Amino acid sequence: MGPARGPWLVFAVCIAPLTAGVARSAPGDPLPSWNDGPAKAAILDFVAKVTNDGGKDFVPATERVAVFDNDGTLWSEQPIYFQFAFALDRVKALAPKHPEWKEKQPFKAVLEGDLKAALAGGEKAVAEIVLATHAGMTTDEFDRLVREWIKTARHPRFDRPYTDLVYQPMLEVLAHLRANGFKTFIVSGGGVEFMRVFAEQVYGVPPEQVVGSRGKLKYEVRDGQPVLVKLPEIAFIDDGPGKPAGILENIGRRPVMAFGNSDGDLQMLQWTTAGQGARFGLIVHHTDARREWAYDRTSHIGKLDKALDAAPKAGWTVVDMKTDWKVIYPFQK
Amino acid sequence: MGPARGPWLVFAVCIAPLTAGVARSAPGDPLPSWNDGPAKAAILDFVAKVTNDGGKDFVPATERVAVFDNDGTLWSEQPIYFQFAFALDRVKALAPKHPEWKEKQPFKAVLEGDLKAALAGGEKAVAEIVLATHAGMTTDEFDRLVREWIKTARHPRFDRPYTDLVYQPMLEVLAHLRANGFKTFIVSGGGVEFMRVFAEQVYGVPPEQVVGSRGKLKYEVRDGQPVLVKLPEIAFIDDGPGKPAGILENIGRRPVMAFGNSDGDLQMLQWTTAGQGARFGLIVHHTDARREWAYDRTSHIGKLDKALDAAPKAGWTVVDMKTDWKVIYPFQK
Repeated sequence: MGPARGPWLVFAVCIAPLTAGVARSAPGDPLPSWNDGPAKAAILDFVAKVTNDGGKDFVPATERVAVFDNDGTLWSEQPIYFQFAFALDRVKALAPKHPEWKEKQPFKAVLEGDLKAALAGGEKAVAEIVLATHAGMTTDEFDRLVREWIKTARHPRFDRPYTDLVYQPMLEVLAHLRANGFKTFIVSGGGVEFMRVFAEQVYGVPPEQVVGSRGKLKYEVRDGQPVLVKLPEIAFIDDGPGKPAGILENIGRRPVMAFGNSDGDLQMLQWTTAGQGARFGLIVHHTDARREWAYDRTSHIGKLDKALDAAPKAGWTVVDMKTDWKVIYPFQK
Repeated sequence: MGPARGPWLVFAVCIAPLTAGVARSAPGDPLPSWNDGPAKAAILDFVAKVTNDGGKDFVPATERVAVFDNDGTLWSEQPIYFQFAFALDRVKALAPKHPEWKEKQPFKAVLEGDLKAALAGGEKAVAEIVLATHAGMTTDEFDRLVREWIKTARHPRFDRPYTDLVYQPMLEVLAHLRANGFKTFIVSGGGVEFMRVFAEQVYGVPPEQVVGSRGKLKYEVRDGQPVLVKLPEIAFIDDGPGKPAGILENIGRRPVMAFGNSDGDLQMLQWTTAGQGARFGLIVHHTDARREWAYDRTSHIGKLDKALDAAPKAGWTVVDMKTDWKVIYPFQK
């Protein structure tokens, strides 16, 4: 507070009227990328009341658990789940070793770039592609492949690394919760080993706080070194009614807050907010076709129908991406 | 360092010869229940070197993961695993609802107090008893039953609550590691929901840092309330080669330190210490029949044979309970 402050103060007072019409954040606003409105207020009010020691809604720090779906809640999921984009790239990379794929669906269609034909086989085709590209290697080898892909692959619409397509407003929610003593977990239908490669760097969520779908693992000693081999067999699908089970198995407590965006998050939201005491549920509604995508009740990916109907009665906050979020991605800041 | 220090210094010098023959800890010793010796030194030296920023063995705080077996490593496991004692008590409590058990093994033998006959059916009999007493209820109901049992049941030899039979020296290791930035995890063949009831209070290990065996869970809505029902079906056995898989699925990183006591911990020790950089493995060898129990190569429970043979070559520390531990249980302090 030396003499240098004077001119800056004058300058600030002079420019204030010029910028009054522009969206700005209050200094120290923990959610600067959120427009003022009911969604932002609901988050801030809830965090304030559960951390207010002595208040009727106080939650001890050890019980402050918040769970976040990943695809469509923390990062985009269009035009296909990003993990599936990784699998398709792996089919192309592995094709020279699998000459039979030239004649075998769904691989033939993938190699010909015809995604629609590749997906004509439905969930079975997806499972075939995922298992063929995710299994048979050690977990260390898989980790390296994902790490390399994350560095080099680019999203077709934005021509940027997939990890650029995380939601800036949700990064701010994660940080605000952690600053208030919450442990933040990802609880996603995506593969747990895939997400862990980038979750710590991108979201600040360490591997042990990532819950996801899993294949079976086999312990082996190869060349004198113990390794874990990924088997082509599903152990657990962390989606829909699987999410509360995944939470209980991995976290062992009912969360206080749950964030999702689709019917795959319905049971997680129900189970979280059915707990005693203060609870919070939030749905990200994709309403912004210009800056991101707009989809809900009839979408193949991230279908939001039952959960959207359940929200008002359950008291869940529904984020209208178009009006609630000032920016979508960090690179738009 | 004011004038008040003088008299204290004189007093300390005067009493020193009087107490020299009594086992004492250096002030600030983080492991006061350990006798000086190679095991205690190995633990302290390892923690010092991996936390020495700038040293060649430094491990960043985010990677400081330590895993502990539970039965026989953090608390006693004789004459039967404590979770099995819970199951036997449940058989007795449930008997009025199951008149058919009076004629049906292994339940008949349990009700007649003939444990040897009950266990004549081997692993199949154990599984039958555990499933019959652990499944069919909600996870909340199971939690309440275990909580009640922990409060009321008493160990037959010591006539104390089972949770009194935790190892004081290991509590000190857990605390010392956490004080040095480690995350401490339990990785046990025991049921994850059983251990979580007391792990936080007894060991300071929160539910999300407990990895164990699991049954399948089913999400249901009962009387309008979402619940998770425990199914009579095993989902995962966290023992032997299952431990590295359980660690990778739940923690997602290779630990830096692993603590076990039996061949069920062999693969966890191998996989942990095969990692690059500084690693630490430790085996608790039960050698004290007077204060606890003495058993190893031929024991039914906690058999320690292959892992004991592997220890010298692998460089694992072997704790001789009789000589390394000043006290076994906190109530003996």
